[in-house]
Amino acid sequence: MKISVVKNVLDANDRIAADNRAIFDKKKIYVINLMSSPGAGKTTLVEKTILALQDRYRIGVIEGDIQDTCDAERVAKLGIPVVQINTGGGCHLDGNMIREALPAFDLDQLDFLITENVGNLVCPAEFKIGENAKIMILSTPEGADKPAKYPLMFQESSVLILNKIDLMPYVDFNMEKAKKDALSINPKLRIFAVSCKTSEGLQGWLDWLSGQIAVFQKG
Amino acid sequence: MKISVVKNVLDANDRIAADNRAIFDKKKIYVINLMSSPGAGKTTLVEKTILALQDRYRIGVIEGDIQDTCDAERVAKLGIPVVQINTGGGCHLDGNMIREALPAFDLDQLDFLITENVGNLVCPAEFKIGENAKIMILSTPEGADKPAKYPLMFQESSVLILNKIDLMPYVDFNMEKAKKDALSINPKLRIFAVSCKTSEGLQGWLDWLSGQIAVFQKG
Repeated sequence: MKISVVKNVLDANDRIAADNRAIFDKKKIYVINLMSSPGAGKTTLVEKTILALQDRYRIGVIEGDIQDTCDAERVAKLGIPVVQINTGGGCHLDGNMIREALPAFDLDQLDFLITENVGNLVCPAEFKIGENAKIMILSTPEGADKPAKYPLMFQESSVLILNKIDLMPYVDFNMEKAKKDALSINPKLRIFAVSCKTSEGLQGWLDWLSGQIAVFQKG
Repeated sequence: MKISVVKNVLDANDRIAADNRAIFDKKKIYVINLMSSPGAGKTTLVEKTILALQDRYRIGVIEGDIQDTCDAERVAKLGIPVVQINTGGGCHLDGNMIREALPAFDLDQLDFLITENVGNLVCPAEFKIGENAKIMILSTPEGADKPAKYPLMFQESSVLILNKIDLMPYVDFNMEKAKKDALSINPKLRIFAVSCKTSEGLQGWLDWLSGQIAVFQKG
């Protein structure tokens, strides 16, 4: 039993991601792929984003985890349709996993789909899933050296959420260095410094996101 | 061009790791494989461990990073031989990478080799490198749900360092839940709650480590 080399695997994934994208375009569903290290605050950002926007958009969520359903249960409490993908050891979501999850939604009843990837600052950046935008989170306790150490995710993302600014007094995080190094990898990166815990700074992210959804739905 | 399926890749890796292990046994070098999410405090633990033990043991370090040499530069300042492995996108160290790094050391002049893996709570747990013990770090800002979400690393590790206890007043971290869930996955796990920043709790880790090295060198 043989499998193809990585390049071909990625080519095959790109084809499936493009198929997903065609479905999302047809159904006018704006899709984000949310990525970060474990514990950077992805699920809390999902919750806060849903609470702020669920009156304006019909939102769905795909939760990617190696195992368990605890993030999906958190989201389901908000009354949002949510599908759990358990990768069974796999370190990232890919196009095929998203394709397999779609029949669980009524796609005619969705404007905005949030996919929360497996917590991993490396591998998820390599796999398209048919998203409109990749969104990444870096939290202040992780340190400002992360753009230099994990450049691909910074390069592939449209937005960098710098989360846990409420911890800034207690951690050694050089905000200016983090921003500068991230922008040197990806000059187009939009950066929002926020605390998902206190909601400080979240409005900038919500405004950006609403603007993107509006442009997409007109297009 | 074809590559083997994952199982065979892991078998091949196990053979190389066993070869490394035979070299370490012959040279009486105790080896740890240090793993965690990005930013959990691996390099700071390496620095503090070297500072505490470099008068008793001849220590060497292998730094694993996707790119850059900033961790290796931090360690080199302590006057310790250090080799940087850049994985070039790869999300973990494997046996072959360690084998390739060994000629850069004078193995007759080492008692203790610290390998710091790529920051990733998923993939490194699957790849043996010839270590005596896998050591993992979970930091309090990451949250107490991580054992349930990333079980393999907790299962494979001999020691869990719960780091950044200095941040406990500012983060929602349930220490008892983290310990209980980790032990339910791996009842043999030794757990040390520490702050690598303030050095609180580090003595327990250093005593355990010194004991292991002593037993190994006698054996």
